[in-house]
Amino acid sequence: MEIGMIGLGKMGYQLTLNLMDKQHNVIAHDVDKKVMEQINSEGVTTSDSLKELVQALTPPRTIWMMLPAGEVTETVFTELLTYLENGDRVIDGGNAHYKDSIRRGAQCKENGIYFFDCGTSGGIEGARQGACTMVGGDEAVFPEIEPIFKDLTVENGYLYTGEAGSGHFLKMVHNGIEYGMMQAIAEGFDLLEKSPFDYNYEKVAKVWNNGSVIRSWLMELTENAFSKDPNLDQIRGVMQSSGEGKWTVETALDLQTAAPVITLALMMRYRSLEDDTFTGKVVAALRNEFGGHAVSKA
Amino acid sequence: MEIGMIGLGKMGYQLTLNLMDKQHNVIAHDVDKKVMEQINSEGVTTSDSLKELVQALTPPRTIWMMLPAGEVTETVFTELLTYLENGDRVIDGGNAHYKDSIRRGAQCKENGIYFFDCGTSGGIEGARQGACTMVGGDEAVFPEIEPIFKDLTVENGYLYTGEAGSGHFLKMVHNGIEYGMMQAIAEGFDLLEKSPFDYNYEKVAKVWNNGSVIRSWLMELTENAFSKDPNLDQIRGVMQSSGEGKWTVETALDLQTAAPVITLALMMRYRSLEDDTFTGKVVAALRNEFGGHAVSKA
Repeated sequence: MEIGMIGLGKMGYQLTLNLMDKQHNVIAHDVDKKVMEQINSEGVTTSDSLKELVQALTPPRTIWMMLPAGEVTETVFTELLTYLENGDRVIDGGNAHYKDSIRRGAQCKENGIYFFDCGTSGGIEGARQGACTMVGGDEAVFPEIEPIFKDLTVENGYLYTGEAGSGHFLKMVHNGIEYGMMQAIAEGFDLLEKSPFDYNYEKVAKVWNNGSVIRSWLMELTENAFSKDPNLDQIRGVMQSSGEGKWTVETALDLQTAAPVITLALMMRYRSLEDDTFTGKVVAALRNEFGGHAVSKA
Repeated sequence: MEIGMIGLGKMGYQLTLNLMDKQHNVIAHDVDKKVMEQINSEGVTTSDSLKELVQALTPPRTIWMMLPAGEVTETVFTELLTYLENGDRVIDGGNAHYKDSIRRGAQCKENGIYFFDCGTSGGIEGARQGACTMVGGDEAVFPEIEPIFKDLTVENGYLYTGEAGSGHFLKMVHNGIEYGMMQAIAEGFDLLEKSPFDYNYEKVAKVWNNGSVIRSWLMELTENAFSKDPNLDQIRGVMQSSGEGKWTVETALDLQTAAPVITLALMMRYRSLEDDTFTGKVVAALRNEFGGHAVSKA
């Protein structure tokens, strides 16, 4: 198929190469000229602007946006809508909030354009070698773009999830689960680190990844990490997050659903961002107030 | 090798068949005559008592105990010690507490017997087809019994973990991680269930298990469960536990290590055992006291 790819970041770049491997004809655009030159050298045609990209594609067009969620996606989406025509298809493969995807789906519908929200998982390696995608949008039109998902993903690695928004909702929850799983794995290794025994963490992750109940891709990545740095001495335990965990917790609140482990996994990430906490100061001060317990001086 | 197997429950029975497949000579014992007859019919020799079992084995003996942790293991272990001789090897493949395994290791050492604590993971299917084992005990003697672990496990599925106790400690932490991972997965599906979308949970688990970051054996089991009962209408959300999660949390307390997600996963299991809670009554009563908020009558 002919596909317009907007956004050649870590994911978009690899997805483009993956699509080219599968004999799709990709025309790509990015605001960064350098990355366009780079992908040009790999045989991918590029367009200098969104408008040019749209003009270069044969209607009905299929355009894949692979952009940071929020403002960038919104700006590009809004401009794109001014160029697109009846029957064109827009796939948002980024991590947009599902409520934005519901809204964008409705905006597209008003303009006779088909919007698909595609949650993409599997990391950079997955984008290049075979990802996992969860796609919401118009059910009748989905089969027309299905070859893209079939080719981009591993076997059984894509799912049509229902109306617009359902793909990004599913991806959001996937990431929430990921937070919980990662925190559980990490707490386990912390217990090993503080145990009376002397474990080789790489070997532990390896044995746990072969035949155990907790075998998983995350455990494989754990093994990889320890193989490079046996005690992770080279990194600090600062746990950043990129938004989907927070959205999952906000959604749990919206839906009044108890999701304590996912929530706490997110809170532990926030905790890790601070060297010291005001919470700690308050508790220390109170212990001192009522019991005269010593405090550590700042 | 010649191996004495004590305990033919769900795990021991399958391990015995697995060992027989790999050309080991197993002599088995269980207090349940029926299960002995059953395994007899599969070509396994049995002994009617612990004493007979020990007498039937050629020194230095290798005995695998696969028994419920606690009293049963302790009783059998204590009796066994009275029959065993210098140089014999005892493997505890059950889920004993690591502190018991440290003690049993020391008791064995006093008697010139080698004790190995073996954490066994992979469920019943793993016991039969290829498990994952984590083995603590005497490093110099381990190679003599290593063929057993090599044969019982999947490729790369066993690890010598260090001194006695380290195998069961590692298995305990493995189970703690399992609690956290399971709770995270389950909370994710709960969010889907309460979402505005209409997901097919079997298909969701399947797509998540192919190419996504959270692909794992637990997700495969999730798919299996939903394939049998699409909305789990046939079961109640009562989450039993068999002890290792509790031990992990107790150990986190002993080691003064923060393991909030594993702890909370355990607490959510306890919560699930109660239809109503006293906590809930107290909070409802207090809301009524200070704000006149309505309470639900018992």
